[in-house]
Amino acid sequence: MKVYEIQGEFGLDQLKAAERPIPVPGPGEVRIRMRAVSLNSRDLGVIDGFYNPNLNRPLIPVSDGVGEVVALGEHTTRFKIGDRVSGIFTQSWISGEPTQDNWVSSLGSPLDGLLAEYAVLPEEGLVRVPDHLTDEEAATLPCAGVTAWHAIAQEGKVKASDIVVVQGTGGVSLFALQFAKLHGAKVIVTSSSDEKLKRAKELGADFGINYKQTPEWDKVVLEHTGGRGADHIVDLGGSATLNKSISALRVGGQISMVGGLSGYKVEGFNIIPAILRKARLQAINVGSRDMFETMNRAIEHNGLRPVVDRVFPFERAVEALQYLAEGSYFGNICINF
Amino acid sequence: MKVYEIQGEFGLDQLKAAERPIPVPGPGEVRIRMRAVSLNSRDLGVIDGFYNPNLNRPLIPVSDGVGEVVALGEHTTRFKIGDRVSGIFTQSWISGEPTQDNWVSSLGSPLDGLLAEYAVLPEEGLVRVPDHLTDEEAATLPCAGVTAWHAIAQEGKVKASDIVVVQGTGGVSLFALQFAKLHGAKVIVTSSSDEKLKRAKELGADFGINYKQTPEWDKVVLEHTGGRGADHIVDLGGSATLNKSISALRVGGQISMVGGLSGYKVEGFNIIPAILRKARLQAINVGSRDMFETMNRAIEHNGLRPVVDRVFPFERAVEALQYLAEGSYFGNICINF
Amino acid sequence: MKVYEIQGEFGLDQLKAAERPIPVPGPGEVRIRMRAVSLNSRDLGVIDGFYNPNLNRPLIPVSDGVGEVVALGEHTTRFKIGDRVSGIFTQSWISGEPTQDNWVSSLGSPLDGLLAEYAVLPEEGLVRVPDHLTDEEAATLPCAGVTAWHAIAQEGKVKASDIVVVQGTGGVSLFALQFAKLHGAKVIVTSSSDEKLKRAKELGADFGINYKQTPEWDKVVLEHTGGRGADHIVDLGGSATLNKSISALRVGGQISMVGGLSGYKVEGFNIIPAILRKARLQAINVGSRDMFETMNRAIEHNGLRPVVDRVFPFERAVEALQYLAEGSYFGNICINF
Amino acid sequence: MKVYEIQGEFGLDQLKAAERPIPVPGPGEVRIRMRAVSLNSRDLGVIDGFYNPNLNRPLIPVSDGVGEVVALGEHTTRFKIGDRVSGIFTQSWISGEPTQDNWVSSLGSPLDGLLAEYAVLPEEGLVRVPDHLTDEEAATLPCAGVTAWHAIAQEGKVKASDIVVVQGTGGVSLFALQFAKLHGAKVIVTSSSDEKLKRAKELGADFGINYKQTPEWDKVVLEHTGGRGADHIVDLGGSATLNKSISALRVGGQISMVGGLSGYKVEGFNIIPAILRKARLQAINVGSRDMFETMNRAIEHNGLRPVVDRVFPFERAVEALQYLAEGSYFGNICINF
Repeated sequence: MKVYEIQGEFGLDQLKAAERPIPVPGPGEVRIRMRAVSLNSRDLGVIDGFYNPNLNRPLIPVSDGVGEVVALGEHTTRFKIGDRVSGIFTQSWISGEPTQDNWVSSLGSPLDGLLAEYAVLPEEGLVRVPDHLTDEEAATLPCAGVTAWHAIAQEGKVKASDIVVVQGTGGVSLFALQFAKLHGAKVIVTSSSDEKLKRAKELGADFGINYKQTPEWDKVVLEHTGGRGADHIVDLGGSATLNKSISALRVGGQISMVGGLSGYKVEGFNIIPAILRKARLQAINVGSRDMFETMNRAIEHNGLRPVVDRVFPFERAVEALQYLAEGSYFGNICINF
Repeated sequence: MKVYEIQGEFGLDQLKAAERPIPVPGPGEVRIRMRAVSLNSRDLGVIDGFYNPNLNRPLIPVSDGVGEVVALGEHTTRFKIGDRVSGIFTQSWISGEPTQDNWVSSLGSPLDGLLAEYAVLPEEGLVRVPDHLTDEEAATLPCAGVTAWHAIAQEGKVKASDIVVVQGTGGVSLFALQFAKLHGAKVIVTSSSDEKLKRAKELGADFGINYKQTPEWDKVVLEHTGGRGADHIVDLGGSATLNKSISALRVGGQISMVGGLSGYKVEGFNIIPAILRKARLQAINVGSRDMFETMNRAIEHNGLRPVVDRVFPFERAVEALQYLAEGSYFGNICINF
Repeated sequence: MKVYEIQGEFGLDQLKAAERPIPVPGPGEVRIRMRAVSLNSRDLGVIDGFYNPNLNRPLIPVSDGVGEVVALGEHTTRFKIGDRVSGIFTQSWISGEPTQDNWVSSLGSPLDGLLAEYAVLPEEGLVRVPDHLTDEEAATLPCAGVTAWHAIAQEGKVKASDIVVVQGTGGVSLFALQFAKLHGAKVIVTSSSDEKLKRAKELGADFGINYKQTPEWDKVVLEHTGGRGADHIVDLGGSATLNKSISALRVGGQISMVGGLSGYKVEGFNIIPAILRKARLQAINVGSRDMFETMNRAIEHNGLRPVVDRVFPFERAVEALQYLAEGSYFGNICINF
Repeated sequence: MKVYEIQGEFGLDQLKAAERPIPVPGPGEVRIRMRAVSLNSRDLGVIDGFYNPNLNRPLIPVSDGVGEVVALGEHTTRFKIGDRVSGIFTQSWISGEPTQDNWVSSLGSPLDGLLAEYAVLPEEGLVRVPDHLTDEEAATLPCAGVTAWHAIAQEGKVKASDIVVVQGTGGVSLFALQFAKLHGAKVIVTSSSDEKLKRAKELGADFGINYKQTPEWDKVVLEHTGGRGADHIVDLGGSATLNKSISALRVGGQISMVGGLSGYKVEGFNIIPAILRKARLQAINVGSRDMFETMNRAIEHNGLRPVVDRVFPFERAVEALQYLAEGSYFGNICINF
């Protein structure tokens, strides 16, 4: 089968097309034929060697994807041939709180990912995906979808009385926007592009702030909320945004620390404003199978459709990753087979 | 001013129109001119002497209403003349958990209620109501609205992945339906009338069960949820419904015990099914000012409109209460001035 | 190997000693040589056919026990030969919330239990037990210990400011007493015996009520708490106690519904007092592996020792069960091998 | 009456003894005769002008103290003459979540504090203190005690299975140590002094780390917890400790951000380790009256005694503050009258 591999060197220009034998499912495992994958910033970090310089290679990258069950190993009971399933990002995190041990079971690093024609995974590491989604839409769920669900619904407990700030318009951000709207909240989106803010509003956002034109977006949030501040802020910017997120938060509010698009080190992180707001900063690291299945029910109840920016064919996977690296997307970038 | 009073005898036919002097606000108090009140089953229970046979009389009944601030006592700061406000059901329950002491501060028993042309209340016992609501709609919030919000959003933490069962189509029930929909949940409504089920669906209900035609509505819920059961059930029936609510619940689900329309004593309440579902039964007793204000934000964010069944003029207040006693309403019964 | 079996007929007098081949661990399984088991009321219910009249027979009863790992199946990694382990009551409930599917994995019904010289269990269904415990003490943990931990620490979140009422002096009750004391709470114990109340106090109870002498124990609780009521009540009585538990509860308090020693059907369960207290009734059904391991850490941190009432040799297992049926124990009844 | 005042200039050497008329309680207020006050780092920050350079002056500093009710204003009901009471740090934060408005009601800035022979406060802003405490012990509760209770019991929900790290041996730290021990947790204390670590162990600490000798105390915590990390860390160091606190935390653990003894700006705050631990950082800003009263019950149940380092007479208040500024205390520094 055809796969892409990180081999000797790191870097997107070193990603190689390769051949591997079609894998055979052992006891408790199933083989899926990939139909679509979806790309995340983390995939670039893995390919660049930033995420883990000591990665075992060769490694198939990309954590998120959807496929069709085409072969069942012994002692499997959860699926039948033909089921459409996604791999769980953290394969061994089934429910409850995560443990240190769970982290070694992530797809796309350290485990082989899904940028391949076939994959074999434990049946416990797969979930059915909602029927009304296209393959590309379904492929976006494992990391981008579950991360946003974890932030908004699980830890955030966002409700219809809340005002939620979502930073940016990437995959996680638009899911966070959509999930916050599902729960009746008002949503403020920040972006560097008026065009993207317009599209975010079409998707349900109540208010947009162009942080390039208005770098002090935190003050706009305070003004827009009558001085009260936002109930929940999904922080994806990291170094450039975290202090401002605290400044834009209401007393007793919550920040989901999800990413570091502008860097992961915050210079001059200021504790006093956090204390004056009794702020809660909750780091989010994708989520459990239980969260994934719960999110799927919410998606089904509401006929929600994830946002797919562009779809590339498998043969042009490197181009898809380059497009991701350019950072000018709105929603998720997918590859189909 | 004109008022209605429970005087010597209990019973709706004993409710008397009377005259009282217009009350004068003391320090920290404000006077409101009533614009509309809304009726709850509890008001009938008070008038009938069922709720508290030792009630101090004469008493002005009815807990829920909206009025306009027309006079300010000394040392008041929260409102200005002309503000439209509602009294909080439990006047002294501001935030956090309630205490035994809070219960003696309920409007309409033991404190005078709002079926009067004017009322004087502490400013701490009033909240502004959303601008987009009519007076009648705003009058429904303090008991029916807050009870449903407390059950669905505060204790229930209902989210978009949930399936919620709401019993009946009275004021609390329809608010529970609306609030569950605001949070993206699927809602099943039970009623004895196909006509009301039809109207509940127009209001957003996903599925209706006529419990007269199908007394084993719990089995229908199980069937409709693929055997899983409902995540949350708002139990208003009490004696006739509580065991069935447990039977219709998913493992780990929650029941809000809100009322006893069919009686408050459950014969043969069965603990085993509760244990087998790890059921949580959470009794709900209206809610705090903080919940009221939080609910108002949710109502404003979503332009939600409470359901008003019928409006009677103040002169025909007794007729309005008789109509409530007949039990064939859909939503809230109001009186305007 | 020697085992006891429920064969054709139900009833303790029908429990048979029998021989079975020593079981062989398959992939992912380990064999343990039993060192001690501990008895629970549920074991009697299973043997009597009350718990499940359609039980598959022959069945080895008894859910709780501790043994030594003596053989490892393929692909096992969690244990090594010689480890001392307990089976988890609900074998497949690892963490997070339970599901309907988990219930079919309980030891001693419907799965074979531990009243046998050897048992084979999936390694995922076993946990190490604290070193400082005797075999008999360790055998009491899976059902009695975990149930109490779930009630007090997990759902109850009992803290040092709380007053906790524990009914009776059986295995679950004494664990609840001990765990509440570990968290600094004040504990009131009810019992029909002054002698047992005395022993409960030696174990840390702050106050005892003889409910035979004082059937209105709820009023004593109210009096003893200055009218405020208890923060948390572990209800093991069921039919005879549940209404009184609500009456003894503070506003906003919580009842753990754990058992039905006096019957599982509550006649005239009264909703009004529950609503007037905003009571939460939380049914408890043992707990997850994660709770078991968390409890073990608490036991280790504090050198806590479970209470063993009497130990019988394996040959006299029926006698041990009869002693349990008589109901005059204080703590856990064990059998060793 | 005699008071100390911050007058024109900031700085401890500018703190002036002054005379004011004995204040008269208005409606809803009571006068207390101060018996003891307790000092917090925040008091120094207020006096130095660091906390609020625009402070209204003259201002009586010091937030924490205990006194005797000596005069009752009109319409007061909560206390009687002779009751021993403490002021609540945040006078208007009664229960539930705080709001922006609450912060303007803090004693000792912006409101006059308690370094005076008498004080008048609203009766709603006072609580009774446990009888078994000396005046000095009781004086330590409002800020140091409530902050630690909020961190450990309210937000931290520390339980007997937890390992808690407490930084330093000041007032908040020792309360955190004592409250964590009350809940059965294992406690690790860090300090720059072996002598203080020894005393912390006498107070119940299970393990001590001298961070001067071992600057990488986070690694010692990991080692001491078998690589798992601490469940809860009370971070008082701020700039020098926050990154290390995250490094010492278990996956899913919680940090209470309470102070900034080494500075409030964290250079190079690193988000990645936080995400890899799904860390929760919860800022704590003292607490509500409800938390204060709840803490008092815990203190009473367990006969807990706060740690008083040294007591100065009122006449030597400046010396007491200088001693605080030197930073070599163990527990709380008090002043009596």
